Amino acid sequence: MTQTPVTGGGRRRSTASVPDLVARARDGEARAVARLISLVEDESPLLREVMAALTAHTGDAQVIGITGSPGVGKSTSTNALVTALRKQGKRVGVLAVDPSSPFSGGALLGDRVRMQDHASDRDVYIRSMASRGHLGGLSWTTPQALRVLDAAGCDVILVETVGVGQSEVEIAGLADTTMVLLAPGMGDGIQAAKAGILEIGDLYVVNKADRDGADTVRRDLRAMLALGERPEGSWRPPIVKTVAHTGEGIDEVVAEIDNHRAWLESSGEMTRRRIRRSRDEIEAIAVTALRKRWGDVHGRSELDELAAAVVAGDTDPYTAADQLLESFTD
Amino acid sequence: MTQTPVTGGGRRRSTASVPDLVARARDGEARAVARLISLVEDESPLLREVMAALTAHTGDAQVIGITGSPGVGKSTSTNALVTALRKQGKRVGVLAVDPSSPFSGGALLGDRVRMQDHASDRDVYIRSMASRGHLGGLSWTTPQALRVLDAAGCDVILVETVGVGQSEVEIAGLADTTMVLLAPGMGDGIQAAKAGILEIGDLYVVNKADRDGADTVRRDLRAMLALGERPEGSWRPPIVKTVAHTGEGIDEVVAEIDNHRAWLESSGEMTRRRIRRSRDEIEAIAVTALRKRWGDVHGRSELDELAAAVVAGDTDPYTAADQLLESFTD
Repeated sequence: MTQTPVTGGGRRRSTASVPDLVARARDGEARAVARLISLVEDESPLLREVMAALTAHTGDAQVIGITGSPGVGKSTSTNALVTALRKQGKRVGVLAVDPSSPFSGGALLGDRVRMQDHASDRDVYIRSMASRGHLGGLSWTTPQALRVLDAAGCDVILVETVGVGQSEVEIAGLADTTMVLLAPGMGDGIQAAKAGILEIGDLYVVNKADRDGADTVRRDLRAMLALGERPEGSWRPPIVKTVAHTGEGIDEVVAEIDNHRAWLESSGEMTRRRIRRSRDEIEAIAVTALRKRWGDVHGRSELDELAAAVVAGDTDPYTAADQLLESFTD
Repeated sequence: MTQTPVTGGGRRRSTASVPDLVARARDGEARAVARLISLVEDESPLLREVMAALTAHTGDAQVIGITGSPGVGKSTSTNALVTALRKQGKRVGVLAVDPSSPFSGGALLGDRVRMQDHASDRDVYIRSMASRGHLGGLSWTTPQALRVLDAAGCDVILVETVGVGQSEVEIAGLADTTMVLLAPGMGDGIQAAKAGILEIGDLYVVNKADRDGADTVRRDLRAMLALGERPEGSWRPPIVKTVAHTGEGIDEVVAEIDNHRAWLESSGEMTRRRIRRSRDEIEAIAVTALRKRWGDVHGRSELDELAAAVVAGDTDPYTAADQLLESFTD
């Protein structure tokens, strides 16, 4: 293994080799963990070396996805879950994937400050990541940030995705257990956008249960979930009511997460999910590598030239795609 | 060109060669247009032949994306726009991309029936497409459905995408002109989800302008748009108020679409957008072809085996991606 020095990523610049950084991260040094995740975020050329060094130390963390529409209380719930998991003595990682414009990369939310409850806890790693993926959604680097937290000894990693739509589906692909939050008093449009969540939740949480309408939300949700046919032996997602800011119901959430984990293991679904996740990750890395190659071959963009030919009517997109693939095999 | 018979795709099965279907579609035969779009939707092996046959006849249609949150009146606005464009004697295509669960493929909306106003008009093609893309969003086949409508002689193609998030961004990549609809009285969550739309709209429409709060929406939108710095000579998106169900303001929308098209042509942006669109299309075709190859090599999935090795800790995802790419070049 080469001992490439790693610079930047922190306020105070320093150099360290990848194996050294990995060793320090495994010892629980928060700064080393942060440095490694920065390498992931920056899509550093060292990533390949980092991932090779991490491999032997990953596979133990339980990944919990937390998703739901804006305003349902995801950050407060994440915070309450961290408190409950710390009481069990677990080391916890939090990866908050911020909604950001796919164009500007700017983050929208300021309420990450609430997580400061745990900022001084050595056994809690909190990291916000921008969602800079292809066409928005979760970045393809998210699985790799999970590997860093996993190798750093996190027992549980909470991945909080903000927003509706795409990232909800993607988090279901990444997590062992996907927790979908709802709350009373959201608008009709939001309710309509929720159709997709019925298929991704392993656990549903009706937060803000002290407000009017919480029972209605639970009843409607139960009715909608009952409509879907589930084969014998499959998981039936429970619905838990919480008031995250007081901690009410959080212990039940933790218990249901444990139930789900037990089911994942006994049913063989855990392995299936992890293989699927790994499959997506390998494919994303390979496709990203190819896209880079296609976009910049011999200092010019072959893809741009093919696109111009298609626009000019000189060729069709299938023939152009064939040429692109052929040029790769040359 | 081979004369492969094309079967299925309609209620009454018939056979026809691809060149024959293309010729009939160009003659304005709605059934031939429908058959070709079905071949696109089904990802038929004949697609390659279809696209090659269409190439010489595409590039003239103006593609207008219509997007916005659920409930702002996209279908009503699309309908009103079709009426206005038909008055100008234009042949119009409508591609309605339904929100559907990425898992079940089921469509949610029933209000496509409103479009029945134009169902008997020979010069209007209306087609709903499921959004079955990779992880939801617009299908990678959408650009090819646009090519069919373009070759069939549509002067204008309206692409209506329902839902927020991913598909909004994708439609901006597909369309010459992206029209973003808003309406008064939407919830806070919806407003928050709107941050991304400020970067994709070429034209903003405040629909339901007869309701309370329309002026507030327009004022807020104007203020938000003013915050973004725009270089000299760039397009400044206008804001138009409409009441789509009475047709109020629709002529102004049409006029602004024409203004935008004139700017696209004079600025060279039209060509840039079309090359970018074609680039995305070629890349999507190539990546889809590769994914199919990776998923099923010699009757087994090489990718599955690599994923299992990564999960077992025997290799890391980068090395696995390298192996995947190497196996392809063998």
